[in-house]
Amino acid sequence: MSNKYRDQFIRAVDTVRDEGRYRIFRDVRRRCGDFPKATWFKDDGSENEITIWCSNDYMGMGQSPCVIEAVKQAVDRAGTGSGGTRNISGTTHYHVQLEQELAELHQKDKALLMTSGYVANEATLGVMSKILPGLHVFSDAMNHASMIAGISRARCEKTIFKHNDLEDLERALKAADPHVPKLIAFESVYSMDADIAPIKEICDLADKYNALTYCDEVHAVGMYGPRGGGIAERDGLMDRIDIIQGTLAKAFGMIGGYIAANTDIIDAVRSLASGFIFTTSLPPSTAAGALRSVKILKISPHLRTQHQERAGALRTRLTRAGYPVIGNETHIVPLMVGDPIACQGASDTLLNDYGIYAQPINFPTVPKGTERLRFTPSPFHTDAMMDELLLALEHVWHTYGLKRRRVA
Amino acid sequence: MSNKYRDQFIRAVDTVRDEGRYRIFRDVRRRCGDFPKATWFKDDGSENEITIWCSNDYMGMGQSPCVIEAVKQAVDRAGTGSGGTRNISGTTHYHVQLEQELAELHQKDKALLMTSGYVANEATLGVMSKILPGLHVFSDAMNHASMIAGISRARCEKTIFKHNDLEDLERALKAADPHVPKLIAFESVYSMDADIAPIKEICDLADKYNALTYCDEVHAVGMYGPRGGGIAERDGLMDRIDIIQGTLAKAFGMIGGYIAANTDIIDAVRSLASGFIFTTSLPPSTAAGALRSVKILKISPHLRTQHQERAGALRTRLTRAGYPVIGNETHIVPLMVGDPIACQGASDTLLNDYGIYAQPINFPTVPKGTERLRFTPSPFHTDAMMDELLLALEHVWHTYGLKRRRVA
Repeated sequence: MSNKYRDQFIRAVDTVRDEGRYRIFRDVRRRCGDFPKATWFKDDGSENEITIWCSNDYMGMGQSPCVIEAVKQAVDRAGTGSGGTRNISGTTHYHVQLEQELAELHQKDKALLMTSGYVANEATLGVMSKILPGLHVFSDAMNHASMIAGISRARCEKTIFKHNDLEDLERALKAADPHVPKLIAFESVYSMDADIAPIKEICDLADKYNALTYCDEVHAVGMYGPRGGGIAERDGLMDRIDIIQGTLAKAFGMIGGYIAANTDIIDAVRSLASGFIFTTSLPPSTAAGALRSVKILKISPHLRTQHQERAGALRTRLTRAGYPVIGNETHIVPLMVGDPIACQGASDTLLNDYGIYAQPINFPTVPKGTERLRFTPSPFHTDAMMDELLLALEHVWHTYGLKRRRVA
Repeated sequence: MSNKYRDQFIRAVDTVRDEGRYRIFRDVRRRCGDFPKATWFKDDGSENEITIWCSNDYMGMGQSPCVIEAVKQAVDRAGTGSGGTRNISGTTHYHVQLEQELAELHQKDKALLMTSGYVANEATLGVMSKILPGLHVFSDAMNHASMIAGISRARCEKTIFKHNDLEDLERALKAADPHVPKLIAFESVYSMDADIAPIKEICDLADKYNALTYCDEVHAVGMYGPRGGGIAERDGLMDRIDIIQGTLAKAFGMIGGYIAANTDIIDAVRSLASGFIFTTSLPPSTAAGALRSVKILKISPHLRTQHQERAGALRTRLTRAGYPVIGNETHIVPLMVGDPIACQGASDTLLNDYGIYAQPINFPTVPKGTERLRFTPSPFHTDAMMDELLLALEHVWHTYGLKRRRVA
């Protein structure tokens, strides 16, 4: 590689660094059975015990003894990798069973596993314009990068509507050619702002303007609804969403993503989506573990109650103490910082001085100027851990001169 | 969903069906310790014992007791999923160690794990034009779908050169603007044609025209080179390839993909590639299993010898019996059929009547008119299994009126 090329790669990273968003990956090891405690491997070779406050293993299912047992059993029975794409020897009985279970969870004909939630969004949205020529996509402004990647890949007409703004969405739908196929793409729970989409109203608009609905429930499956079917299940709206997209990597504690829909949609995506076709399927043991996890959470409303209680407790304590908590309806508790350098600094101090791990959320994950710390209390985060966190924040907020509402 | 939409989804699948390339996924369960034997779950609910002849678990590492032990140990220690993106609590010590091992394997500064080989290609190639404005990519005509997806995502100037054709590549390089950044993207082993790229000569051209080189070694890592570093290692060319891309899902028997390159390239891709940033990292146990697998294959040249011996034995027997074997230099043994319906029929008969599982390879995996059966003998495919295969093919070739060279 010539120096000219090297300089360009270096410059690309320098830009990231200059904007205060150069990312240093923390090397941690989760300790099974002891979550949210973990070991942090520091750059100098030493190790520290820390408390993870930013995991998307929201319910701690990644350490469930039943899930672990299912994974180990499947590895013993079927080995590690699947050895092929879904079409070329990579469809195992575990995949088939998991897809049936997910279809049942969302009350759809069929489900289709993908290697990740990212791939599920990108592959599915990316192939829609091929199936529906002339497609016009209406996309919420806060949609996840993977949805944006899929829509961009589709190279179709698209309109971005203001976040959760029904008027803006209707304006866009009304302005569009009434004869072209339409699809409204949105999330149920927005992970960084911790707010929830007006699903019913979006579906009403979809009916009115004859649009398909595509809802990303990755931050909701397992955690909302009587059986963990997500916000759409909670609100009795699953049958009004044409394509529900979910993940196995968050509340279900594994890896992988999926869509659930009627037979015709699934068969078309299965037959045409490049990101689904040309990739090795998930390992049998991943499917086995996820199957167990979905089954467990289906019958564990008490875990969901406990989870919400913990999130509510933290949110209340932070709000009462005057911290700028964002959102108020989900299990995610973000604190606005509004500056990338301060956000990184606050996170570093929390980790170094207090063993509290909350990764800074900077651009491009959130818009510039809205950098934040994002806490995800699980059922395993105790009151004592919250005491520690509040104490540490007190110090950190002062150190970095961050704003706090005056409290009585 | 209105009937109009439903019709469009149905029509999309009908087109696939009309072209004889509708895919029926075989529901199999690998039996650990018994590979390539497996159980086939038939649609009528019955089960058959079969021999898998089309797995990309080329070396059978998916059932290695040592790899399985590493996976189970890591699940016990760290739980199942990683719980986050690499940046947000999803970097574990297992990931760090595996990346170091892969960098060492390819003699590069750094390696970067992705959730799949597909994602590694798409995310890396997709971000290149952002780092190198004005980029012109030169892409081999037979490159994998994931590379095509990445290049398409980059939305840069691209020229497709004839497969493995140095003259055509040079013509294209010569015709290009000498001042723009250039990248030559190719594979080492082409999986469907079982041939190998002229890597040295491509690198010579890259030097001459100041282009970067990107080589997909997914069908070579673990299987070629003294330590399993791939064809580039075998030919002493690793230092001449700027970005080596590999997979953990084939010879290494797990799931996941990666790139290996110098620090500046890795840091730029790590900092900017959407498909890397916004997705949950591989489970710790996947990284642990892959680490073990890479380490084992590094010191197992005897397995590579055995693997090549088995592939050679099958290729020789088929060639002697007059079958249209494609290619002659790799571990993959494809037989040309040249018709999608016959290819599907032959595969069905092999499976139903002989318990031999070789999935038909149809469009879009290969060009129309070049449909084929593709056999991948592992070190665990015995002479007796080959006897059975030859006997079955004799019948199938006759049944479908397929061509065979007359033999003395």
